[in-house]
Amino acid sequence: MFTNIRWTLPAVCFVWQTAMIILFGVFVRYNGESDAHWAEFKMARNITSDIDNDFYFRYPSFQDVHVMIFVGFGFLMTFLKRYSFGGVGFNFLVAAFGLQWALLMQGWFHSLDYTDGMIKIGIENLINADFCVAGCLIAYGAVLGKVSPVQLMVMTLFGITLFAVEEYIISDLLHARDAGGSMVIHIFGGYYGLAISWVLYRPNLKESSQLQGSVYHSDVFAMIGTLFLWMFWPSFNSATCDHGDGQHRAAINTYLSLAATVLTTFAISSLSQKHGKLDMVHIQNSTLAGGVAVGTAAEFMLMPYGSLIVGFCCGLLSTLGYLYITPFMEKKLKIQDTCGIHNLHAMPGVIGGIVGAITAAAATESVYGKEGLVNTFDFTNEFKNRTPAVQGGYQAAAMCVAVCFGIGGGTLVGLILRMPIWGDVTDDNCFNDEFYWEVRFAQKTPSFSLSLSLSLSLSFFLCKNVQNRFRNDPLRLWF
Amino acid sequence: MFTNIRWTLPAVCFVWQTAMIILFGVFVRYNGESDAHWAEFKMARNITSDIDNDFYFRYPSFQDVHVMIFVGFGFLMTFLKRYSFGGVGFNFLVAAFGLQWALLMQGWFHSLDYTDGMIKIGIENLINADFCVAGCLIAYGAVLGKVSPVQLMVMTLFGITLFAVEEYIISDLLHARDAGGSMVIHIFGGYYGLAISWVLYRPNLKESSQLQGSVYHSDVFAMIGTLFLWMFWPSFNSATCDHGDGQHRAAINTYLSLAATVLTTFAISSLSQKHGKLDMVHIQNSTLAGGVAVGTAAEFMLMPYGSLIVGFCCGLLSTLGYLYITPFMEKKLKIQDTCGIHNLHAMPGVIGGIVGAITAAAATESVYGKEGLVNTFDFTNEFKNRTPAVQGGYQAAAMCVAVCFGIGGGTLVGLILRMPIWGDVTDDNCFNDEFYWEVRFAQKTPSFSLSLSLSLSLSFFLCKNVQNRFRNDPLRLWF
Amino acid sequence: MFTNIRWTLPAVCFVWQTAMIILFGVFVRYNGESDAHWAEFKMARNITSDIDNDFYFRYPSFQDVHVMIFVGFGFLMTFLKRYSFGGVGFNFLVAAFGLQWALLMQGWFHSLDYTDGMIKIGIENLINADFCVAGCLIAYGAVLGKVSPVQLMVMTLFGITLFAVEEYIISDLLHARDAGGSMVIHIFGGYYGLAISWVLYRPNLKESSQLQGSVYHSDVFAMIGTLFLWMFWPSFNSATCDHGDGQHRAAINTYLSLAATVLTTFAISSLSQKHGKLDMVHIQNSTLAGGVAVGTAAEFMLMPYGSLIVGFCCGLLSTLGYLYITPFMEKKLKIQDTCGIHNLHAMPGVIGGIVGAITAAAATESVYGKEGLVNTFDFTNEFKNRTPAVQGGYQAAAMCVAVCFGIGGGTLVGLILRMPIWGDVTDDNCFNDEFYWEVRFAQKTPSFSLSLSLSLSLSFFLCKNVQNRFRNDPLRLWF
Repeated sequence: MFTNIRWTLPAVCFVWQTAMIILFGVFVRYNGESDAHWAEFKMARNITSDIDNDFYFRYPSFQDVHVMIFVGFGFLMTFLKRYSFGGVGFNFLVAAFGLQWALLMQGWFHSLDYTDGMIKIGIENLINADFCVAGCLIAYGAVLGKVSPVQLMVMTLFGITLFAVEEYIISDLLHARDAGGSMVIHIFGGYYGLAISWVLYRPNLKESSQLQGSVYHSDVFAMIGTLFLWMFWPSFNSATCDHGDGQHRAAINTYLSLAATVLTTFAISSLSQKHGKLDMVHIQNSTLAGGVAVGTAAEFMLMPYGSLIVGFCCGLLSTLGYLYITPFMEKKLKIQDTCGIHNLHAMPGVIGGIVGAITAAAATESVYGKEGLVNTFDFTNEFKNRTPAVQGGYQAAAMCVAVCFGIGGGTLVGLILRMPIWGDVTDDNCFNDEFYWEVRFAQKTPSFSLSLSLSLSLSFFLCKNVQNRFRNDPLRLWF
Repeated sequence: MFTNIRWTLPAVCFVWQTAMIILFGVFVRYNGESDAHWAEFKMARNITSDIDNDFYFRYPSFQDVHVMIFVGFGFLMTFLKRYSFGGVGFNFLVAAFGLQWALLMQGWFHSLDYTDGMIKIGIENLINADFCVAGCLIAYGAVLGKVSPVQLMVMTLFGITLFAVEEYIISDLLHARDAGGSMVIHIFGGYYGLAISWVLYRPNLKESSQLQGSVYHSDVFAMIGTLFLWMFWPSFNSATCDHGDGQHRAAINTYLSLAATVLTTFAISSLSQKHGKLDMVHIQNSTLAGGVAVGTAAEFMLMPYGSLIVGFCCGLLSTLGYLYITPFMEKKLKIQDTCGIHNLHAMPGVIGGIVGAITAAAATESVYGKEGLVNTFDFTNEFKNRTPAVQGGYQAAAMCVAVCFGIGGGTLVGLILRMPIWGDVTDDNCFNDEFYWEVRFAQKTPSFSLSLSLSLSLSFFLCKNVQNRFRNDPLRLWF
Repeated sequence: MFTNIRWTLPAVCFVWQTAMIILFGVFVRYNGESDAHWAEFKMARNITSDIDNDFYFRYPSFQDVHVMIFVGFGFLMTFLKRYSFGGVGFNFLVAAFGLQWALLMQGWFHSLDYTDGMIKIGIENLINADFCVAGCLIAYGAVLGKVSPVQLMVMTLFGITLFAVEEYIISDLLHARDAGGSMVIHIFGGYYGLAISWVLYRPNLKESSQLQGSVYHSDVFAMIGTLFLWMFWPSFNSATCDHGDGQHRAAINTYLSLAATVLTTFAISSLSQKHGKLDMVHIQNSTLAGGVAVGTAAEFMLMPYGSLIVGFCCGLLSTLGYLYITPFMEKKLKIQDTCGIHNLHAMPGVIGGIVGAITAAAATESVYGKEGLVNTFDFTNEFKNRTPAVQGGYQAAAMCVAVCFGIGGGTLVGLILRMPIWGDVTDDNCFNDEFYWEVRFAQKTPSFSLSLSLSLSLSFFLCKNVQNRFRNDPLRLWF
């Protein structure tokens, strides 16, 4: 296949960036808290101190979310031995494009100022744009190493669009609450990616199997991604919550859920191997499932022990997913899921949706307080007569919407991506940076590859058990 | 020895996590600032804006501390060439368990609501739990590569328990101030780890010596840990200080002390080597000593130059410690200290305790202001008649308590860990990830190890000085 | 040449650190918001809540800036295959020294309390010190791998001094606005470094050319630096802006500009290579140019589309700079620029200065609001009659001042650094950690280098095309 992206990638980048500039010029302005008219805005609303600007409530969380998107997702995808550039690099490209388009799409739905037809943006829009991008990056995890950057750009354009519509239906029409996006982000992103991967099924992928794994170093790089995601997940789930107790409670719930997940992940990982050895794939991924699953209910009165229970179950299920579901999906369902996003996002997202629906339905005024109940579920205006039980039903409905958008949208976009114009590699060349990146081999020292070649040639004449002598060679790991 | 942890590790994880869930269910609830009743809480206390929720005072610092615990400590311990998985991975496991147990233990001592017998948690509890975990991770540094994950879990369970008691005695009974935990965290954690390492002395550890070192890459990974610890230490020392000037001053003092430490560390490191070459071990560790030593006095009016002096001395002493004390301890005292925690935590902690005692005793109303003195040392209620001089005495007493708890507790726990049931490795198999992790060798390409084997076999017939030809081979470093 | 720094480096460190302690003792104290007299300060100014302490407005941004200085710049410079220790290590040393000297120099110009002749420091001083250090680290990028640590210390001492004077002229005398330091930091730092590199021209540098490049891993390490710089740049540009809308708007503008830069960088990078392959050098560096270029105007009403346009142009120009200007400068102008700081800092800085001048000149009361215009440009006191048009002129003048200080100062300092007393390496030993660091080779396994030696010897007798057989060897990349 034709992997030359010299014209398509620049063309897509230039056209889309130019479109963004024009659309931003026509539609996007600062909102009341970021505009130079802030002094007047403040006076009109009787705000006494600059510290009440939404910026100070949300900026620290925003930066944490930003780190999760670029370093978290980026480095989590460096685990492949020969696709680290593509993992962190294309993640960067896709996220930078996606957030611009997300600002527009989400802006039209949520931040349109009807007096002048302009989208008014502030810090909360930036966070939501990052959230929106997260959905697409999750999907990238399923097809990592198997698609071209141009395909990724197309996938992101449609992904963001679908996301914004789905989010509008869930949060505005159904009025479902989803602070950390278990449904909106993780279910949608997960199934969107899996559906695309299903349509783009590569029957001969095993020919690339020698590259579909990690080496010692690349696993350590991936831990950077894992840890930044894990540490900042409380910020992710609390970033757009209500000021005050909402953000506070969401952070606590997420912190606890994630801690419990780590223990069950280690337990199952050890239990599943003959000698009890731990598997880095589980530690890198399943430890994060608790953050996903507590997303919807993060702002609710889930109670500390409730968070622990959610985390406990998720670590368990997610690790079992890596052990049994991923191989099953690949073999029987023809879904090739490079990073195992089904176990890390889709399935925990569903758990999160269910937990959210149950917790919402079970909410009582005695637990939340009269005002607390109204604030937490935003039972105001046209929703002021909704009861917790009804809210639970709408939460469940929202979950179905997310699943449908994911699978439906993914299938459709997958079909578009099957067109033979996007410059993707053949089945035996997947997971290989060489096709899209100038990779610096150690060419300055031809000695090395030659030595390898030579040695190999000679090796065939030597009996294999010589190898055993070097079992404890401390360097072996580093290759 | 029997390193199979297939049953013990999962058992410990499941039992302890289940216990946590039950105990959290019985004991832990949200506090006034994270509960949905916040609206009523606010009204009752005449709080006008949500921004006065403690969350906004402490959350950014909390996240920085969180990064220090998981990425800072975790990556600092990746420096061993073949124990990077264990360094960052077990750090993750231990911290995730420890913080749950710490929330309970510290909660019983400090956040118990006597009206309903519940522990009420908020953001400050999360920070304190992270602090508590830090003590155990420091101890891990002394035994890195020499214990099994099950031993680590046991060590953490007891470590957190001892920590909470020690902290209660120091901060509540003695009413000593220790913002950054020089005594509570670093002295305790340091001596706890050293005592354990002393009891678990491995006479034949030198047989693992080929693995007890770094390679080029692993040193760069460790610098990630060093830098995040260094950068966020001002947050560590200021995280639980008084609102306003307390947090502000603690951050400034720590920032300055750490800067000075870097210069003396580089100086001594260069001075100690024949050709003035710098040693990464010193740069990775001793540059942090200034943060430890300024911990107790961080909130006091130490003055900017005072912080610089503390940092200056600590960089000097800590680096000399690596050069002379660590080898001495290993040889004469039979204490094997993998990461050199004596130089990075224990000794600077003692300096910090002394600095704190002196600065407290020297505090005057003219420097602090009448109200400032009361606020800084919390001379209220039953302590309202305490004078700075007396406070200095109690600070010194607190230091002794920390040392005793560390050494006493460590010895005891060490004895428990000597039981032959924990699955630890033999002396000649230390510092090796292979026993607890599925390590992906480059087995897909047998050519390589074969080539190595072959080449080695032939090499014996060649004269050694051929090697010199390749002194400038740019690749040599990367192996 | 004599690379032994055993006496010079420690001497410089000790003398300068001692000088810092003395000067801090004589000159530096806490300011009203970090002093224990805060309670009285608060009362005198009618501040009702501790949250109005400047600490809470700026501390999160400060920590982000701190990360940029130490991890961002530090890891960006680890890209060389054999100079990663020097990149991240000397960056650490230089920054830690520089920030102390910067606190003094900037303090004398901006924070001197004339009532007692003391510099009063708070959180904003720490941010400014980090900014000042950034200028010197930019300059380090031009000479990376070619100077000794002692030369770097000298370069920093003079650099900080020049910076403080330049900043005083620009911000106080000319009253030019430069929130993110496009002019003050990036133009100055860029030309300062280029001028030094020009004076220190190394005619035979190509003899080190085998080390002047990256390998697979070192490029991944460098991406850590890139991403932390990219993500936290909004904090950099907003850290010292006006409370409220100023910080809010600056963050939004920078976020958008950087996103646009990524797309054009990828586009040009792909377009420039025969098969459309991307070059990591561009991705690591040019993606950041948008943050530099939006610096001066970050706080202005640049409008979201304006930020995108700036980012668009900068990604384009910066990548073209790497392709055409850097080789031209090296060949024709005899300026060797290791990291390409001309493309990442100097040129985008000039663009930023121009954008700032134009935007300032075009400011109107209708866009900013009456009060907003005064606040944004600080048209108060002796500047209360200045008009936007005049302000534009002063902005342009400021840019010239920055260029002159950079080139003039750099040339001068370069001449000082040419003295043969600083222990720098010869032209054929550049980019090599071995001269200043104890580098741990894998000496424990002599087999390896021997095997290399042997293999190489034999390889000469083998025909070269054996090599082709291993084109798909998955390990080749990791060497």
